[in-house]
Amino acid sequence: MLDYPASIRKLIASLRQLPGVGPRNAERLALHLLQPRSELALGLAESLREVKIRVQACPCCGFFTEEDRCEICRDNRRDSTQICVVEKAADVLSLEKSGSFRGLYHVLGGTLSPLDGIGPEQLNISPLLERCRSLVREVVLALGQDVKGETTSLYLAGELKSSGLRVSRLATGLSVGGSLDYADPQTLTHALQGRKEL
Amino acid sequence: MLDYPASIRKLIASLRQLPGVGPRNAERLALHLLQPRSELALGLAESLREVKIRVQACPCCGFFTEEDRCEICRDNRRDSTQICVVEKAADVLSLEKSGSFRGLYHVLGGTLSPLDGIGPEQLNISPLLERCRSLVREVVLALGQDVKGETTSLYLAGELKSSGLRVSRLATGLSVGGSLDYADPQTLTHALQGRKEL
Repeated sequence: MLDYPASIRKLIASLRQLPGVGPRNAERLALHLLQPRSELALGLAESLREVKIRVQACPCCGFFTEEDRCEICRDNRRDSTQICVVEKAADVLSLEKSGSFRGLYHVLGGTLSPLDGIGPEQLNISPLLERCRSLVREVVLALGQDVKGETTSLYLAGELKSSGLRVSRLATGLSVGGSLDYADPQTLTHALQGRKEL
Repeated sequence: MLDYPASIRKLIASLRQLPGVGPRNAERLALHLLQPRSELALGLAESLREVKIRVQACPCCGFFTEEDRCEICRDNRRDSTQICVVEKAADVLSLEKSGSFRGLYHVLGGTLSPLDGIGPEQLNISPLLERCRSLVREVVLALGQDVKGETTSLYLAGELKSSGLRVSRLATGLSVGGSLDYADPQTLTHALQGRKEL
């Protein structure tokens, strides 16, 4: 049966590898990119090549950077006695948007998951322990509240506490503006256990 | 406030220009493309460049091709006395999937829309009239059933009938397997008017 020419089929196959893009959507995107007189396809191709050439992980904390160190590690107004440990680079931006943390970050690049063959060696953990040997006094663990995040937090807490550091983790409880109707029982348990006196 | 490095922001901006991709989704796609050790970004960049270099509109009918003429125009087993007129190249594939048309196609590249400044000169209409001067005996108008599609069909019918050609259009009615519950009144009117004796 008739089909698109080979290069269009190849483009559709590439687009299908993007998260959340199914066969119909990949076809629609490809046809949009193929529009005559549109510079979108070549502009996107150029952006993709540029990002792969320019962007790397900061050798110090693992956040994205185009320079030798990232913007946060270069900023000497930040409190270098505090390190906040996150799973992935995008988490750094989420925390920065809250504007509540003035220390440095450390991106693990994942969470422990023995079934998938991800142990401590596969994550950015020994550089973290290395960093903690200098000025650092507190490590804030800001990992997910799922099983893998919990396991990783417990593992890191064990490793870090033995070096005499303060280790804390993000609080669990209701969202700001959230009602009890939408909170699950586990979250409510944590919210009760972590209740604060007024 | 902290943001992604410039080249990542540029990639996010390019991705946002795709249909149906909002700001959060563009960010998610960019982060997926940035994954270390993934060849997806460079593969996609290559596919985009290739498609822009290789694919062009068939000079005869306007369908996609990587050669001098498209697969359908090159196939001399097709009935060159029938031309089916469609709005866009992807419509050719939809009709080919039905397997019910063995003639040639003609892609208009849009529909008449005076308010948007799209008149007969902006569409691929005079090459169609040119093609109809040769062997063609019937033109099937397979445009959309919306106002613009209707207007374009009526305009083309006027132009083509004066050359003594048979001009037909796709039937309007219920979908195969469709129930009356889901058909709108206009579709039912057309289905009644076009009823067939058994």
